[in-house]
Amino acid sequence: MKNYVMKGNICYSKTRQELCIIENGYVVCEDGFCAGAYQELPEGYEAFPCYHYEDQIIIPGLVDLHVHAPQYPFRGLGMDLELIDWLNTHTFAEEAKYADTEYAGKAYDIFVEDLFKSATARACIFGTIHTDATLLLMEKLEAAGLKAYVGKVNMDRNSPENLCEESAEKSVKDTEKWLLKSQGFQNVKPILTPRFTPSCTDELLEKLSGLQKKYDLPVQSHLSENLGEIQWVKELCPGTGFYGESYHRYGLFGNSCPTVMAHCVHSGEEETEMMRKQNVFIAHCPESNANLSSGVAPVKTYLEKGMKVGLGTDIAAGSSLSLFKAMAMAVQCSKLRWRLQDQSAAPLTMEEVFYLATKGGGEFFGKAGSFETGYEFDAVVLDDSSIRHPQKLNVKERLERLIYLADDRNIAAKFVNGKELFKK
Amino acid sequence: MKNYVMKGNICYSKTRQELCIIENGYVVCEDGFCAGAYQELPEGYEAFPCYHYEDQIIIPGLVDLHVHAPQYPFRGLGMDLELIDWLNTHTFAEEAKYADTEYAGKAYDIFVEDLFKSATARACIFGTIHTDATLLLMEKLEAAGLKAYVGKVNMDRNSPENLCEESAEKSVKDTEKWLLKSQGFQNVKPILTPRFTPSCTDELLEKLSGLQKKYDLPVQSHLSENLGEIQWVKELCPGTGFYGESYHRYGLFGNSCPTVMAHCVHSGEEETEMMRKQNVFIAHCPESNANLSSGVAPVKTYLEKGMKVGLGTDIAAGSSLSLFKAMAMAVQCSKLRWRLQDQSAAPLTMEEVFYLATKGGGEFFGKAGSFETGYEFDAVVLDDSSIRHPQKLNVKERLERLIYLADDRNIAAKFVNGKELFKK
Repeated sequence: MKNYVMKGNICYSKTRQELCIIENGYVVCEDGFCAGAYQELPEGYEAFPCYHYEDQIIIPGLVDLHVHAPQYPFRGLGMDLELIDWLNTHTFAEEAKYADTEYAGKAYDIFVEDLFKSATARACIFGTIHTDATLLLMEKLEAAGLKAYVGKVNMDRNSPENLCEESAEKSVKDTEKWLLKSQGFQNVKPILTPRFTPSCTDELLEKLSGLQKKYDLPVQSHLSENLGEIQWVKELCPGTGFYGESYHRYGLFGNSCPTVMAHCVHSGEEETEMMRKQNVFIAHCPESNANLSSGVAPVKTYLEKGMKVGLGTDIAAGSSLSLFKAMAMAVQCSKLRWRLQDQSAAPLTMEEVFYLATKGGGEFFGKAGSFETGYEFDAVVLDDSSIRHPQKLNVKERLERLIYLADDRNIAAKFVNGKELFKK
Repeated sequence: MKNYVMKGNICYSKTRQELCIIENGYVVCEDGFCAGAYQELPEGYEAFPCYHYEDQIIIPGLVDLHVHAPQYPFRGLGMDLELIDWLNTHTFAEEAKYADTEYAGKAYDIFVEDLFKSATARACIFGTIHTDATLLLMEKLEAAGLKAYVGKVNMDRNSPENLCEESAEKSVKDTEKWLLKSQGFQNVKPILTPRFTPSCTDELLEKLSGLQKKYDLPVQSHLSENLGEIQWVKELCPGTGFYGESYHRYGLFGNSCPTVMAHCVHSGEEETEMMRKQNVFIAHCPESNANLSSGVAPVKTYLEKGMKVGLGTDIAAGSSLSLFKAMAMAVQCSKLRWRLQDQSAAPLTMEEVFYLATKGGGEFFGKAGSFETGYEFDAVVLDDSSIRHPQKLNVKERLERLIYLADDRNIAAKFVNGKELFKK
């Protein structure tokens, strides 16, 4: 079905301050795009078939700007270390297993099935260095109808032998091979994925920059997550003034190279200003940043500067694929940051985190994450009847409550790019 | 059934460092008490009937040391304020409704049904000032088979008119009336509950002290949650050196008066030392302390001093009744405290938060929260098969993962005080 109307309580963000709520309203899907949200259905749409969702809540599909698919097996485990030790002890050992496509198939089935059941419509996903396993992940996401950027990871230094590509040249050659095999997907697109500066030689980043230009690719990586990491990058990249420059000097940092950088917990003024100028997207991953004792990113400041920010679950440094949980933790961590670190930046509001999880992150995909006219039509229908209450609640209150309490049982239906993925 | 054996993967704490795990082991219930946990079933118990839980995980029932039952309707709502404004804006308006026992009945049905379905076996619960509504809550908890201390709240100043008792005398008279009506319960016991110093005149606390001695009652209240609150107490109680003294000078602070104080986020050295000497229990409520921008309590320090600490969900400043969530947030918040505030106190470990949610809080109920011999027999059986994984996991890893990811769907059976409350 290409054209239809949904009736229910419509909620979506126009800006980080403006949350639009239309009680008993309509939202229209035409050819996979949103034709607007309305209190009264405009003439011309009455002939469209209508999904009647009664008193349920309809929101845009959520957007996860940063998640590591191969780390899903150890979500909720091994969070006793900071970043670098956590990578060496827990993460690399798991990622090395994806050389075995049979293991990768089993693991990625679980990841994709759980992502399918979640409220997430779109995601920026890290794979591993392995081209076959990464293609397998892409096939499964494509079949599930989810929208995703997926990256084969590049790493050619400071990595265990079984997870270190043998040379920059080989890494780039494998990447190009993978890129060429990734062209046939409709929903899933490749994204260049140098793991992070400590794992990538200058030669590798330079060669990846060539691929980026040749194929006009977006890029995802990590930035200024942890103080030890930042110090290490300073030592590894003596020519740079700050971490972000290690990407920027190879043209892998925004503007003509659409870029999403995870974390940015400890970005200084210069780095922040460069991200702003370069329109770099920040994937804020509050649970991950707590679990790895990284800190709390100054998201309010980034938003006030008009920068581009969305949310990431960052499996498996984050334990849960739920962006509802990420929204709640973004508010909670911003409050602790305000209390313990910096009272000049107010805590995030409920409107702001809802914006981050929808339109904020959605912008990396073009026009996605809102019910404004012209947006790609992703929608999630929420049934909150299991969260019982004796008093009356308005729709905004019910949405706020869902941010703290929703799990996959509350998802009554999910649409991505106009297509119904499931209903309960 | 009074005597039985359970077979499965047994997990319980002996100390905060020592988590005992017996794979494919046995735990024995005899007359409602634990007769020990074993790798091989000792002679004499073979005749007991056996619950075979196969590869499932069996833990002691969890203990919630601080929860406000009447606030359950607005869990997940209105967390835009700090403590005092939050009380005035959101909390008191809801609590005033419990003058109407019909409303109270509806609301407490929801609370008790959800608590029943959770992994919580025992709880210290705040009601409201209303004796009838509080008795209704106690009846419902009793009928559900949950173990609880429940308090009719006292407040005779700085409260809205419809939630302020008309005098200390009337407050205490009502409390004694309620106490006399509370004597017949088996599972549920009354606990004196002066809301917190700002809500209670000196006269009220003095008179409550008389009741405490007359009926040999335990006490629950709040302590040093928020900086504005602490400043206010200083102004209200000019004779005191710190907040805790406002309770201690009336004998409502530990030792002969078993006491649990919620929060203790900002307790100074003297207050901490007094809590230690008086064996005051601290209810650590990490989610609440984040949601109301209070801060993070120095739980590691309290534990290292050998003080008595458990976990509280603190509904509705906490959004969830789940003590699994409270455990995860206790670890996460301790990491942010370490990162942002005080690197002399290490983050909490998984073993420590499991201890807090079981034996740590359980001690307020006597011998509860462990499978050591002589403990009251509370048990929760966890089925984690829905949290899928492609690799092998040991029992400790599965338990750690449940702390981050479990919800009520993972609870396969629950026993309190030897009695099976439900199985799925």
